[in-house]
Amino acid sequence: MAEDPGARASILADAALEGDRLALARLLTAIENRTPVAEAALRRLYPVAGRAHLIGITGPPGAGKSTLVAALIGEIRAAGRPVAVVAVDPSSPITGGALLGDRVRMQAYAGDRDVFIRSMAARGHAGGLASTTTSAAAVLDAAGFDLVLIETVGTGQSEVEVAAAADTTVVLEAPEMGDEIQAIKAGLLEVADLVVVNKGDKPGAQRTAAQLRAMLSPSGARPRDDRPRPKRPEVLVTTAATGDGVPALLAALDRHRVSDPDGPGSAARRVRAATQIRAVLAERLVDQLGQGPLAELNASLMIEVAEHRLDPYAAADRLLEAMRRVPG
Amino acid sequence: MAEDPGARASILADAALEGDRLALARLLTAIENRTPVAEAALRRLYPVAGRAHLIGITGPPGAGKSTLVAALIGEIRAAGRPVAVVAVDPSSPITGGALLGDRVRMQAYAGDRDVFIRSMAARGHAGGLASTTTSAAAVLDAAGFDLVLIETVGTGQSEVEVAAAADTTVVLEAPEMGDEIQAIKAGLLEVADLVVVNKGDKPGAQRTAAQLRAMLSPSGARPRDDRPRPKRPEVLVTTAATGDGVPALLAALDRHRVSDPDGPGSAARRVRAATQIRAVLAERLVDQLGQGPLAELNASLMIEVAEHRLDPYAAADRLLEAMRRVPG
Repeated sequence: MAEDPGARASILADAALEGDRLALARLLTAIENRTPVAEAALRRLYPVAGRAHLIGITGPPGAGKSTLVAALIGEIRAAGRPVAVVAVDPSSPITGGALLGDRVRMQAYAGDRDVFIRSMAARGHAGGLASTTTSAAAVLDAAGFDLVLIETVGTGQSEVEVAAAADTTVVLEAPEMGDEIQAIKAGLLEVADLVVVNKGDKPGAQRTAAQLRAMLSPSGARPRDDRPRPKRPEVLVTTAATGDGVPALLAALDRHRVSDPDGPGSAARRVRAATQIRAVLAERLVDQLGQGPLAELNASLMIEVAEHRLDPYAAADRLLEAMRRVPG
Repeated sequence: MAEDPGARASILADAALEGDRLALARLLTAIENRTPVAEAALRRLYPVAGRAHLIGITGPPGAGKSTLVAALIGEIRAAGRPVAVVAVDPSSPITGGALLGDRVRMQAYAGDRDVFIRSMAARGHAGGLASTTTSAAAVLDAAGFDLVLIETVGTGQSEVEVAAAADTTVVLEAPEMGDEIQAIKAGLLEVADLVVVNKGDKPGAQRTAAQLRAMLSPSGARPRDDRPRPKRPEVLVTTAATGDGVPALLAALDRHRVSDPDGPGSAARRVRAATQIRAVLAERLVDQLGQGPLAELNASLMIEVAEHRLDPYAAADRLLEAMRRVPG
């Protein structure tokens, strides 16, 4: 593209705000690839965003996340509200865009322009992933989706970070997955605002829910390191395949949205803002180190550290010193 | 501890250099917890390090990493060489230190002070994990271990980063795991210097190895995004449980160690150095934003971004500007 990124970003952002879904998809690709268009578009769209309810949905493989998200979409659409889904797979370095799963899932809503589903693959480190997801959510928020579901796959640390970037975090558990220690170990329950035992028609679902309620009660077992538990998540039972419990889940989500006295998800929003600012700072830092007057110093310090002639702390301090002397 | 961190670090570092294993264990705990003792100790030990061969060992669950590591330890000790193992579990936020698994594994080498095994849990984001692992490896390197095995669990992006921080990266595959797409998807094969098909006594092991050789050959299938494949990993077959193929694996590792014309693992060392410097810069940045003259500005910008009155790029640029004005 010979076009100026700022001009292209303006055109795409305006079109996305007016409901152009292709423009929206292109902006999300730009965000995924961290192009200059992404920065320019986000600067324009960020002030328009802030109205959507961002909902993180995570849980171990097999808990039924995709089925539950599908059921939630149905419930949200039945209420006439527009909904977008960002499906993040932190274990995949392959770009999303038009994954097969998206196409299959989109087909169910082929004629419905108030449903938008998009996969994002992992790029770079986990912090970058949380930041990319947050940027994507901000664009969907600005484009007028009332709810943005952030679905993450797996049980690693990155999924926890991604889910925790939402206003409300839902952690799924399957009944009889049994090993409660595993859930605590992965830190999943610690980020939960709502815990959902899905596959509620399976034997053991109610027992699993009861165990989780006992565990999450003030007197229940704590994480091994005795950190305080800031959240008292409600435990719900759903059967996504039949839709049982899904209206109650949407109601619980709406309650959580308005429950925060400082405004919806205000604490989560501040954490998200801090993550975003840090991610941009890190990007700027990498840019400064890779080009311009600091690149040469950086390259020679890197070799000195690689050869163990200098320790990384001394190298970092020399770069910080040099950065201060470089005119912005 | 009322002690000065620098003084404590000196005492521990000197003791570790003289072979004190308890001091070494304490330094690793300091590194895991990122205490001031860790920085002071690393500044002292880093120039002494650089002689060990750092070997990353990763692969999907069930491929037999722990068994292979145990067999490798046996082979390395039979050659009279000292060996340390850092076992990293990026999905666990719980501190390592003295995990049960370590104790069980250590028991086999109870009387042997030339074997040191240590678990490290994940702290913070994946970049931080790679940096913690690298710091731990540098301390073990300085303490005189000829080989440092970095064993990582799972198939996520963080494991790939951790494994790639080694001089030589070994990726394990189990026979008949079958789904080659999965391995490519996880980016595992892209970081491999050596690919090992373990459980070589299982039917299908040789066929899996042949498939991998075909896939990794210059004419073989490439990752979907057509990135160039910088490495041509050798494919070996081992049966860790019986020791079959393990001497050949150690020989291949030793060959890889000396194969680099610019010195052992020089490219990997530079990547590692860059990662370390960036991790320290990020730490310094977080410190600057959290305390001192920038903390107030940072807090108010965070709220403006959280309330969508300011975009994160503008906030980051204002912080960078302010940083330049703050005397170092």
